Amino acid sequence: MAELPVALGRHLGQIEAALKTNLGQGTSPLDAVGRYVMGWEDEQGRPRTTGGKRLRPALCLFAAELFGASPEDALPGAVAVELIHNFSLVHDEVQDRDAERHHRPTVWALHGEGQAINAGDHLITRAIAALIEKPRHAERSLAALRLLNDAMARMIAGQWSDISFESRDDVTPSEYIEMIRGKTGALLGAPLAMGALFAGATAAQAERLQRWGETVGLAFQVRDDYLGIWGNPDLTGKSNISDLLRKKKTLPVVFGIEHDGSGTIRKVYAQETVTAEDVPQVVAALERVDTPEFVEGEAAKLVFEAARLLDDFELPAPAREALREIGAYLVERDN
Amino acid sequence: MAELPVALGRHLGQIEAALKTNLGQGTSPLDAVGRYVMGWEDEQGRPRTTGGKRLRPALCLFAAELFGASPEDALPGAVAVELIHNFSLVHDEVQDRDAERHHRPTVWALHGEGQAINAGDHLITRAIAALIEKPRHAERSLAALRLLNDAMARMIAGQWSDISFESRDDVTPSEYIEMIRGKTGALLGAPLAMGALFAGATAAQAERLQRWGETVGLAFQVRDDYLGIWGNPDLTGKSNISDLLRKKKTLPVVFGIEHDGSGTIRKVYAQETVTAEDVPQVVAALERVDTPEFVEGEAAKLVFEAARLLDDFELPAPAREALREIGAYLVERDN
Repeated sequence: MAELPVALGRHLGQIEAALKTNLGQGTSPLDAVGRYVMGWEDEQGRPRTTGGKRLRPALCLFAAELFGASPEDALPGAVAVELIHNFSLVHDEVQDRDAERHHRPTVWALHGEGQAINAGDHLITRAIAALIEKPRHAERSLAALRLLNDAMARMIAGQWSDISFESRDDVTPSEYIEMIRGKTGALLGAPLAMGALFAGATAAQAERLQRWGETVGLAFQVRDDYLGIWGNPDLTGKSNISDLLRKKKTLPVVFGIEHDGSGTIRKVYAQETVTAEDVPQVVAALERVDTPEFVEGEAAKLVFEAARLLDDFELPAPAREALREIGAYLVERDN
Repeated sequence: MAELPVALGRHLGQIEAALKTNLGQGTSPLDAVGRYVMGWEDEQGRPRTTGGKRLRPALCLFAAELFGASPEDALPGAVAVELIHNFSLVHDEVQDRDAERHHRPTVWALHGEGQAINAGDHLITRAIAALIEKPRHAERSLAALRLLNDAMARMIAGQWSDISFESRDDVTPSEYIEMIRGKTGALLGAPLAMGALFAGATAAQAERLQRWGETVGLAFQVRDDYLGIWGNPDLTGKSNISDLLRKKKTLPVVFGIEHDGSGTIRKVYAQETVTAEDVPQVVAALERVDTPEFVEGEAAKLVFEAARLLDDFELPAPAREALREIGAYLVERDN
């Protein structure tokens, strides 16, 4: 299991405090749901300790420091991106009918789908507020909001594609990669670029860092898709059959359907439900057309692409080393 | 039927053009859903003419002109508020399970609930983009976004309350008024204040105009609740039983439940479904405790409060007259 790099854990206290200030201690039910989503309270409003790593905020502050700013300068961006991430989780859970996340009931499971939609919408307004209420530096805040809003739009477009893929059996691997570039990549690239902008970096510098983060996010997702079928659950802590049981259209499946002349995978996925007995024949069909090798190759290409993006950066050696460490962690983390 | 005041119809062409520029002619499915929601295209993407009055954008441009600006100055605010209004409609339809609006299938009825959630989320990003992409006047755009974001948060809080009222039988009239202040009022007050801000009005002027718009919005909703039970469908074009059949907790019902010693209304609303045969006894129970008089009184109070807010304004006579006309229209319009 990959360990959190020091550079990403350093400001967790500051991030949590800023998030708490933003979401407030109010008695409004939407505030309370916000605190529940962030992990600070249980269903009854009793305090609990969160296990949240706040990766995206940490990336934002790291990028700010990389360009010579203090973490405080970029805190509004850190808060905003975490709230947008959580909005997307709350809406995703409704869309995927997920009743649990990290062993806790999801918002819709507690309050119904209608209220979960409201709770997600509310988090968007809090994210915007983080960036525009009393900005220290109005122009940089506006640039950061522009960037975050664009990333959010691409994330939503990815989510649209993901849902639309469920009813299609002709999704291509490149369509799939485009989808996860939005759904997973956009919100890993954005905080890095936002941090850079808050530190006064140029648009070109911010954009390069953003592309690096997005590419690393893609590599994570492709690797995660691989482990979801060929991983060792004892090592990954992740089931290697549940993706198939849930008929998820991951990269291996999309590639497999495209190349499997026998039609096995398509047939099993066309069933009302997939059972554990169906899994071995699907895996066999995937392996017959060299799916594991293809997916490993795609992940390796993305890791290489990310490394190349770093090479182009003019950075002092320690900063480059920290980025490399962060990149490795982001690809290999278990969630 | 109240007729649209000239001052609100004058810039419709400009508003539509700006909305079309914002939502784009792209081939992405989210853009296409946006065009469908705005009424420009049918389910197959074929052009159609919209019947949209774009009241909120018109209010924004009107307010800008009131303070001496040209309508163009406030167009970004007009576009943003209309997109936020439409986001709220798309999510409301999911929450209320409304399969039709203005005789057209709603987004979730066409694309499923998950995609309707995405479509609404997408419209939020387009609204933010309207205000922050290439702003003519960054500071005013930021002030307008702050105001719109706050209104949006209050609208969402109102929507939360509205849904939570469904499972309660002890909602008070003042809780109800608070709910519609968010759900209906916030997005009528906001465009007026945004227009004022784009014209360089002071925060105090913008706030007064906003309060006026909110109050007028409340008066509309209370009157609409009244007509939903005691209106003449031939005159209003609106059913006078469907609110009760749908067990809506409108102001009359909330007041009635509070005062009806017989428990009739509470009992009927506790039924799985309410039928047309149940309606007369509910109406009789409401009338026994003088509900129509109470609701008419509340509407009259709000109309009076709005008029008082106008009196405090330092405005040339024609502007005051235009506002009065707009206020009367907003209260009496049929949708």
